[in-house]
Amino acid sequence: MAVQLADATLHIFAICAAILTFKLLFMVTLIGVLRRIRGAYISPEDYRFRGRTPGPPDELVERVRRAHQNDVENIPVFLAVGLLFALSGGSPTVAWWVFVVFTASRLLHTVFYLAALQPWRSAIFAVGSVALGVMPALLIWRTIR
Amino acid sequence: MAVQLADATLHIFAICAAILTFKLLFMVTLIGVLRRIRGAYISPEDYRFRGRTPGPPDELVERVRRAHQNDVENIPVFLAVGLLFALSGGSPTVAWWVFVVFTASRLLHTVFYLAALQPWRSAIFAVGSVALGVMPALLIWRTIR
Amino acid sequence: MAVQLADATLHIFAICAAILTFKLLFMVTLIGVLRRIRGAYISPEDYRFRGRTPGPPDELVERVRRAHQNDVENIPVFLAVGLLFALSGGSPTVAWWVFVVFTASRLLHTVFYLAALQPWRSAIFAVGSVALGVMPALLIWRTIR
Repeated sequence: MAVQLADATLHIFAICAAILTFKLLFMVTLIGVLRRIRGAYISPEDYRFRGRTPGPPDELVERVRRAHQNDVENIPVFLAVGLLFALSGGSPTVAWWVFVVFTASRLLHTVFYLAALQPWRSAIFAVGSVALGVMPALLIWRTIR
Repeated sequence: MAVQLADATLHIFAICAAILTFKLLFMVTLIGVLRRIRGAYISPEDYRFRGRTPGPPDELVERVRRAHQNDVENIPVFLAVGLLFALSGGSPTVAWWVFVVFTASRLLHTVFYLAALQPWRSAIFAVGSVALGVMPALLIWRTIR
Repeated sequence: MAVQLADATLHIFAICAAILTFKLLFMVTLIGVLRRIRGAYISPEDYRFRGRTPGPPDELVERVRRAHQNDVENIPVFLAVGLLFALSGGSPTVAWWVFVVFTASRLLHTVFYLAALQPWRSAIFAVGSVALGVMPALLIWRTIR
């Protein structure tokens, strides 16, 4: 094995990465279920297969899709940069906070998005962005010092 | 070198990651070629540069774009979580199946999407999602036991 | 620590990954600021919270959003495959060129997109895609030889 999950930083990263991957899969499943319930599909053949007629975009489906799209813009970046950050060492305490705050912020972001709660959605998005930004800042710091 | 591609799990992961990256680049190129053939561009300056008038969205371009968008929502997550999964060890047999099934499912998903084949597109999407979900499940299992 | 940032290839990868992560965060912040300035939001509750009436899509916001979307389709793939490429060794010179050319191409792509400069935007996109494609090509080459 190249790396050990027993390492404290990799341990918490693996748990956060797992939670966030499950979250993405959950959202995709939720969107699929909602598309079926609401009869709002993405492609013409989906309407033909279900025997439905295309209508205007469904607001609930679009809302969940926007929340998922926001995850897609943030989570893969976290997974890749977080892995580099975890593998390259540094303070396990800082890493723990970055990983846990980012993961919690993504879960709350979806809750606030689905509940249409502003300014909470924007606030928690900002928290997640700061957590994400700590990693490149520390990577630069470590490479130049 | 920190890790060896000679490691059985990393070897198959590197091949799958390479195939999926080529796939993304192929789709992007295909979309670019189709936009040019069909005269359906993404920005006003593209129409000006080609001397074309913006029209309604082109269904073929939109179909390939939707297939690509689905890749964008899935492949980067696989690449990052798969690397963590491969680096952190575990059964090479399980890893082989997860990597190969996910990669095959993405190739077939695009084939079924471009051919507008339902329920095959949804079925193979589900297969790929299960393969993707095995990795966080095993990561959690390994961290808590 | 599993890997050392002192390794020449990982050193340059970490710097490029940090720059690209900052770039994504900058674009997201820019989109947020522009949405507020132009009163063009993404969800109904945003309009309610700001006391604005939804209008047609704002062309400037949509332009920055398209530039960001293009980053989202490319940067996470680079971050994950680039990490595998950096970790698995090979020529530091090749890696340096791939990382630096890709990173520079993404920065220039956004400049050209925001300035609506064609064919420069398409040309620099192609340069970035070639840099991205070198990595899977060399990974395949290393695994089969």
